[in-house]
Amino acid sequence: MDKKIKVLGFAGSLRKHSLNRALLRTAVESKPDQMDIEIFELNDIPLYNGDVEKEGIPDSVKIFREKISESDSLLIASPEYNYSFTGVLKNAIDWASRSYPTEISPLHKKPYSIMGASGGMGGTIRSQMHFRQVGAHIDMYAMNKPEVYVTFASKKFNESGELNDEPTREHLKKFLASFYDWTMRFRDLQDS
Amino acid sequence: MDKKIKVLGFAGSLRKHSLNRALLRTAVESKPDQMDIEIFELNDIPLYNGDVEKEGIPDSVKIFREKISESDSLLIASPEYNYSFTGVLKNAIDWASRSYPTEISPLHKKPYSIMGASGGMGGTIRSQMHFRQVGAHIDMYAMNKPEVYVTFASKKFNESGELNDEPTREHLKKFLASFYDWTMRFRDLQDS
Repeated sequence: MDKKIKVLGFAGSLRKHSLNRALLRTAVESKPDQMDIEIFELNDIPLYNGDVEKEGIPDSVKIFREKISESDSLLIASPEYNYSFTGVLKNAIDWASRSYPTEISPLHKKPYSIMGASGGMGGTIRSQMHFRQVGAHIDMYAMNKPEVYVTFASKKFNESGELNDEPTREHLKKFLASFYDWTMRFRDLQDS
Repeated sequence: MDKKIKVLGFAGSLRKHSLNRALLRTAVESKPDQMDIEIFELNDIPLYNGDVEKEGIPDSVKIFREKISESDSLLIASPEYNYSFTGVLKNAIDWASRSYPTEISPLHKKPYSIMGASGGMGGTIRSQMHFRQVGAHIDMYAMNKPEVYVTFASKKFNESGELNDEPTREHLKKFLASFYDWTMRFRDLQDS
């Protein structure tokens, strides 16, 4: 671990006390030294509309696309809503996935990892599998292993959103160390 | 075919000249007499946010939920974005899928059918399969067959969004006749 890498993190939930936003903040505490993680909030991304896009890409979308471009990889956390990831996340990805004559999608050939926390025993398994299908179309590079499925998460995070579960924290550290390696493997794509 | 049924139709695209919105309008022309189809536009549904929900369900979401409640079944059309259905549609479903102490989700036990049109040869196959997984969680009743995958749709619809392809129109008629029967099969759930 030598080179510094920049990771952009974002969550599929907008709720202030969201477990998945808490998980993302915990990742920032658990990351290797050579990794910087910036968290981006999706609140201002409007519903995707091809007519709006034709008039001009909204500023919030432009900023999101720029932040993706400037990052070496993406760290995504999403709850599972209805056996899939959230509409909020899909909508942001739909915007960012667009390529234009003057600008290819910044998601193209971007390494990423996905993690999730849920109140029950599923840990967002189905949500993550749906995301991987979407990422495959965009030609994003998903890290396969390790996976992060935080089950019964409301018992593992306290009311301030702090993780009180050492095995989960240790697993997150391993996950992020692997994600550093995974990102480095594609580093030439960002350098070019 | 005796009883009249009410169908609520909505599309996953907001674009004015969307092929899928055109497909929905064509369905209105091709429906059996005993079926009414009202089209609902998703433009005003905000991004799902649990904090906003706690303050009070936005009016646009309330109206959407009421329209679903009042309908016997749902006719959904969606493009495929990134190997899945659109974030716009997922977001609307995420809102409508919520149950509250005083109000169960109006999607619960609702019969539906899904169709899609695409510019290429896929015809939204992957998009529809993702939707079926989501619908299963909500306990919506998906019609399995016939399916509607309108391939190379930009050649089948003219610039005004009118369908110029007789085999597709005939197929839509069969699809909607079957959907009438499918809806009637669950009619008791709406009557109760």
